Amino acid sequence: MKIDGTLYHSIWPEDDGRTVGIIDQTRLPHSFVTRHLRTLDDAATAISDMQVRGAPLIGATAAYGMAIALRKDPSAQMMSHAYDVMHATRPTGMNLKWALDETVQTMRSLPEDQRADAAWALADEICRRDIETNQAIGSHGLDLIKAIAAKKGPGETINLLTHCNAGWLATVDWGTATSPIYQAHEIGLPVHVWVDETRPRNQGASLTAWELGRHGVPHSLIVDNTGGHLMQHGMVDLCIVGTDRTTASGDVCNKIGTYLKALAAHDNDVPFYVALPSSTVDWTVDDGIRDVPIEQRDGTEVSWIPGKDAEGRETSVLICPESTPVVNYAFDVTPARLVTGLITERGVCDASKAGLATLFPEKVTAA
Amino acid sequence: MKIDGTLYHSIWPEDDGRTVGIIDQTRLPHSFVTRHLRTLDDAATAISDMQVRGAPLIGATAAYGMAIALRKDPSAQMMSHAYDVMHATRPTGMNLKWALDETVQTMRSLPEDQRADAAWALADEICRRDIETNQAIGSHGLDLIKAIAAKKGPGETINLLTHCNAGWLATVDWGTATSPIYQAHEIGLPVHVWVDETRPRNQGASLTAWELGRHGVPHSLIVDNTGGHLMQHGMVDLCIVGTDRTTASGDVCNKIGTYLKALAAHDNDVPFYVALPSSTVDWTVDDGIRDVPIEQRDGTEVSWIPGKDAEGRETSVLICPESTPVVNYAFDVTPARLVTGLITERGVCDASKAGLATLFPEKVTAA
Repeated sequence: MKIDGTLYHSIWPEDDGRTVGIIDQTRLPHSFVTRHLRTLDDAATAISDMQVRGAPLIGATAAYGMAIALRKDPSAQMMSHAYDVMHATRPTGMNLKWALDETVQTMRSLPEDQRADAAWALADEICRRDIETNQAIGSHGLDLIKAIAAKKGPGETINLLTHCNAGWLATVDWGTATSPIYQAHEIGLPVHVWVDETRPRNQGASLTAWELGRHGVPHSLIVDNTGGHLMQHGMVDLCIVGTDRTTASGDVCNKIGTYLKALAAHDNDVPFYVALPSSTVDWTVDDGIRDVPIEQRDGTEVSWIPGKDAEGRETSVLICPESTPVVNYAFDVTPARLVTGLITERGVCDASKAGLATLFPEKVTAA
Repeated sequence: MKIDGTLYHSIWPEDDGRTVGIIDQTRLPHSFVTRHLRTLDDAATAISDMQVRGAPLIGATAAYGMAIALRKDPSAQMMSHAYDVMHATRPTGMNLKWALDETVQTMRSLPEDQRADAAWALADEICRRDIETNQAIGSHGLDLIKAIAAKKGPGETINLLTHCNAGWLATVDWGTATSPIYQAHEIGLPVHVWVDETRPRNQGASLTAWELGRHGVPHSLIVDNTGGHLMQHGMVDLCIVGTDRTTASGDVCNKIGTYLKALAAHDNDVPFYVALPSSTVDWTVDDGIRDVPIEQRDGTEVSWIPGKDAEGRETSVLICPESTPVVNYAFDVTPARLVTGLITERGVCDASKAGLATLFPEKVTAA
């Protein structure tokens, strides 16, 4: 997508064939800083310090990290070392491990002198596939937005609501939940996005608002409490969110607070869609509320809020008494019954076993 | 209630009979500062600068403001001037206007030399009545908590969830939503309160967490997004919130986000109660979603968050790009169908016309 008119991906190979560029997302929204990853440690730090975040982008960074390491030393020892270093950055990431495994499996059978080029080409290919998947999600989601537009007067605003950042910054390009929105904007549909700030980490305020604003998509920031009121008053035409993990029966694990928006959408007959690459479906789990463990994170994410003060300094402020106990669940599960549909790279389906079977018969049969 | 073992009201007459003490709530939670109101302007500033807030406390402050003014000059001109000054502080406040009208009506018929003492006594009386009302709300709400406790094992925690600050700081003492909680705590029931931080103004994090903590009531701060997950997993036994205005048919206007918690409570069979003095029922309005206008406030309340930085400085930070448009609705309306019951000073009733008629027949007949 564009940043003030210039096309960017969230990660890109430099022309020297041994360096990778990224946007340092820890500095957003107040500073736009790009960094060059020149060593394995640079790549590992980019992930562990969350300069890059979002499962697809983490996978891409891991693949480039392997390629950078193998360019210096294509030996089996280095491959094993690089795998361990990258894997330790965020050990629970599915895409991370998948990208590392794919790299090692492919490189193992190659002679050492071909590994660097091959690893580099594989990382490029992982990025290309991510973009392709997200474009396909966007194109299927665009049909939903077009259908809403068709029921409105010409030029009438189409109001979308999203939670957290399932934007292009979390992927290589397009994003998942944002892909239909960008595509609608590209073809001139008058979309406007309600951006949930998404406490506690404020990814909506700091990332989604930033990327929509820089690309030129009309939007408004709201607190997470506001969506229900907007839906009661007909101010939301469609909710569209991403997901970290969706079960085989269509329960959706996503950033904490997603469930509350789905309830409000259901109560007000607002369609609630989840955009996802099928790689995030966990075909081994059915009941998301019972069986998806929810990560509890440090309470300081709630009590200390980072931002920029009036003098332009980037700092954090404490919003409660120092002694206040804090509980911080990172995700919740939206039951499939509240999800209007899943937007995947193969099309839109019901959030159910039967719905997923229509698009992914090979997975459902296999499970 | 107590602050670290010492009993406080949120406002109190000093022994000199001409000065009033308050807690400067703009400095909470990071500094505990009391102030003395010695002049009419002090009292007006206390309200307009939100050193005092919460409808009942604003009413009490307005009554004392009149008494302070009449102590200096009991003339009709001063009474009229003081009325105008106090009324201009927050012109939409119902309790504010009510307290001012009651003062002027009572004083008008008195000789000038009796007005100061009478106004002072009336302000004391308004405070006494507020405390009495809240104690009664607490006692009726306590019965609900006792019923929950009776179904649990001995010593098993009773988990309550509240939104915003309907605490003793918003009233003269006890609070409305917090009154049953304090009373349960007083008799030794093992209550624990989930405190919604309540974006955008964070009254939960800065006021409710502070007052519960200082009084010694176990609690945990959570982001507003968390309540749904907690209710899905059986971690909330009862929701209890306050209200700014409840309609004659039981629709509840309260801080933005209340509706989302009521939806989650309904979806998980968690009882959802609203604590209110009957003075906040608007007997002239039925359909809250259609007919209660929702205030839109300045977007900087969302984009700039006040707190204390690591060096102990009280400051604010910007959490989004400077150019991000913000929309900031202050309240929402929870439809009566999602409210398990209303806890009033006369008892608990259904959130409906019929329910309110059982406790307030004189109001319903009159309407």
